Amino acid sequence: MKIARYRKESEVTYALGATVVMEYLNNRPDLVTGVILHPQFRATETIDKINTICKNNRIEVSTEEKPFNILSQKENCFVIGIIKKHEGKLTAGNHVVLVNPSNAGNMGTIMRSSVGFEVPNLAIIKPAVDAFDPKTIRASMGAAARINIQTFDSFEEYQALFPDNKMYPFMLDGSKLLQNVSVEKPFSLIFGNEATGLPDSFQSVGQPIRIEHGHGIDSLNLPIAASIALFSATSEDFR
Amino acid sequence: MKIARYRKESEVTYALGATVVMEYLNNRPDLVTGVILHPQFRATETIDKINTICKNNRIEVSTEEKPFNILSQKENCFVIGIIKKHEGKLTAGNHVVLVNPSNAGNMGTIMRSSVGFEVPNLAIIKPAVDAFDPKTIRASMGAAARINIQTFDSFEEYQALFPDNKMYPFMLDGSKLLQNVSVEKPFSLIFGNEATGLPDSFQSVGQPIRIEHGHGIDSLNLPIAASIALFSATSEDFR
Repeated sequence: MKIARYRKESEVTYALGATVVMEYLNNRPDLVTGVILHPQFRATETIDKINTICKNNRIEVSTEEKPFNILSQKENCFVIGIIKKHEGKLTAGNHVVLVNPSNAGNMGTIMRSSVGFEVPNLAIIKPAVDAFDPKTIRASMGAAARINIQTFDSFEEYQALFPDNKMYPFMLDGSKLLQNVSVEKPFSLIFGNEATGLPDSFQSVGQPIRIEHGHGIDSLNLPIAASIALFSATSEDFR
Repeated sequence: MKIARYRKESEVTYALGATVVMEYLNNRPDLVTGVILHPQFRATETIDKINTICKNNRIEVSTEEKPFNILSQKENCFVIGIIKKHEGKLTAGNHVVLVNPSNAGNMGTIMRSSVGFEVPNLAIIKPAVDAFDPKTIRASMGAAARINIQTFDSFEEYQALFPDNKMYPFMLDGSKLLQNVSVEKPFSLIFGNEATGLPDSFQSVGQPIRIEHGHGIDSLNLPIAASIALFSATSEDFR
């Protein structure tokens, strides 16, 4: 199959690794346009599954080494999925909102937690890292196949579309502690850039929240903060 | 300065990046044996700080490019710290216990959260990834400078040293949900390997806990699970 190094402008992205590819085949086979197996891939049960799903969905399968040299530096990647980019529309309900995220791996880890806590709606406010970067897809462990992603030019544009959502910006100087807030639904959990956080203007958006921590660190890692917020906001649902 | 590519057997490790180096210089200058500045590093304020601390602590400083080519693939790394490995002894109190962790970046992210939630004691049960890998130090954002790390050959060896600690193994099939457990102190929050989790034998250790999530994912990312547990176990302290 014809494979080019990934670029943001590409119409397709790549799922790297059997686990991630299987998530797409099981959940969104309509998005998979091809699967490439490494000639040294020996997991016959997985190969059988891949071949069956691909046959049923008329997805091309090939066995060749070269695409792995082009796309993957990881030694333990033996399956590549070619994935149509699938930005869609958020559904009404609970959302995670990332304002100007800059790290692809972080975004993927947030997708994994969002799907885990059953908030599979991710709003991304530009400028932002590419949500379809293969690094994002891989860090999501395939959760990218189960999440609605919608990109907005501004936070105002997002907010205008979901006037009923309760807005909770997470800020180092948010006025309430997470453990003292009863998060109401439908909620929007809002997080800023890894290095700079949310602009001060978010102090007047909804109820700003802080996750208190000691002075030993400047801030929590972004996916950690987002996941603690998701856990806390949904813990009543998982009793 | 003489720099060799990092190996597990090395007596020193490397802090890569100004933020991480400054954490060591501010908190543990006794562990820093040298600092290398990139010839293109232009942050004069940071350079002044580094020079002052190094002068006061008799730490050698040099400006040269070659070590960056040996140690760092990242383009945005302009400072290298040479750090004596500093495994020590856990202090009595709350601990995080990692059983057979396999990913250096994950371990660093857990250090950052542990320091953030003021549980700066990390027990590592072998076999385990190298806690002093530069990738660990970097992912910790320098929190590695503020944490006690002690490695044990077995969980039993750890447990025998801290008979008063309440043990909370985190398992996908733990019998109680995190939000329904009142974690008692001193606590030991125990986590298994990224791929395999904790062995079944931990079902009979203390109170096994699960962080419930939906079927859309197999498990939460390890640092995410550990950080949610830390947040939950310490939230009374940060009111």
